[in-house]
Amino acid sequence: MATMLAFIGTDASLEPAFARTALKAVVDNTFNMITVDGDTSTNDSCFLLANGQSGAPTLNEGHKDAERFVRALEAVCTDLARKMAADGEGAEKLIQVEITGAASEADARKAARAVVGSPLVKAAVHGADPNWGRIFAAVGYSGAQVDPLRAALWIGNLQIAQNGIATRATKQEARTHMEGTEVKFRVDLGLGAASATAWGCDLTEGYVVENSAYST
Amino acid sequence: MATMLAFIGTDASLEPAFARTALKAVVDNTFNMITVDGDTSTNDSCFLLANGQSGAPTLNEGHKDAERFVRALEAVCTDLARKMAADGEGAEKLIQVEITGAASEADARKAARAVVGSPLVKAAVHGADPNWGRIFAAVGYSGAQVDPLRAALWIGNLQIAQNGIATRATKQEARTHMEGTEVKFRVDLGLGAASATAWGCDLTEGYVVENSAYST
Repeated sequence: MATMLAFIGTDASLEPAFARTALKAVVDNTFNMITVDGDTSTNDSCFLLANGQSGAPTLNEGHKDAERFVRALEAVCTDLARKMAADGEGAEKLIQVEITGAASEADARKAARAVVGSPLVKAAVHGADPNWGRIFAAVGYSGAQVDPLRAALWIGNLQIAQNGIATRATKQEARTHMEGTEVKFRVDLGLGAASATAWGCDLTEGYVVENSAYST
Repeated sequence: MATMLAFIGTDASLEPAFARTALKAVVDNTFNMITVDGDTSTNDSCFLLANGQSGAPTLNEGHKDAERFVRALEAVCTDLARKMAADGEGAEKLIQVEITGAASEADARKAARAVVGSPLVKAAVHGADPNWGRIFAAVGYSGAQVDPLRAALWIGNLQIAQNGIATRATKQEARTHMEGTEVKFRVDLGLGAASATAWGCDLTEGYVVENSAYST
């Protein structure tokens, strides 16, 4: 979670059990899907406070507006999570990694986190280098099941690999996308229907300076 | 293993089953205990070739010289492993992390690898900063069992923490040790008799440059 204390307030009225379930699900897809350097902090925590001041009826699991509330909560947490990733020590770019075609959601999450956390991928993003071998290598060691003969990769909107091998796409278009401040990768594992998204940031000389040049 | 192809030759005569067991045990304590950035390579491999040219009797598990051969093999592999860690991309210092007092060998290995692989620890080593909180944090998230009230830490020969809290040691002595090219940490988990050692290197601006400034 990048050393985070998150406090989210709402004037909705929430049944405590529903609030707990909703927050857990949303945090798993947002704050638990960001990584700066893989290190974790004992501070990492997220609180949801609901005071019911809106006067609207109390939401529980079965309420017709429950899903709308969860979506709104996810929108807030996604926005905060992306901002934190983009604000990682020394970061110059936000990286978004979407995994599709996974055999299970657990696999999709593992693969997304491995790619976004790989120092080699992070350094390649810093150099705007469409080094797709590093991306597939991270998927490979993540432990997620993947069909190497059906795996595909997009950098931005450009498909770079299909059925496990390079397409004829010119690298320059991928490089141009990677020169921006928000770099998107999508990897399809070629197996199932599960997906997940993770966010991180590039690895820069600034990260090293920020974490080595001050004294405790 | 840091993208390694290792070929080790000997003129001893080895029973294949013994050669396999000996190599596996030694590799687990040496090449499998180094990390540069946590990324892995499909090249990583180690071959042991024995041609029997010495004319000495064939060694097997039960032979009186078997243990001597394993120790010699371990000495060779430890030397190579340390040299590879010290030669990591952009590295300026070798880091050695010894874990003692672990409840199991698996725990000791997990903790040693977590500390030596932590980007924050690696950056602190680069800055010769005795940031012991980062070391304990990595032990904490490694998944290894630790008794926080009995944990202890040494930087070089200086005991920095005892029973989970800082000693009165002055940081300057630790800093002087960390300014050298070989930095040693020992963490005692305060539980059992198991131990393990891992090797890595500091994280430098040079690592970032080397992995971002060239194009595929």
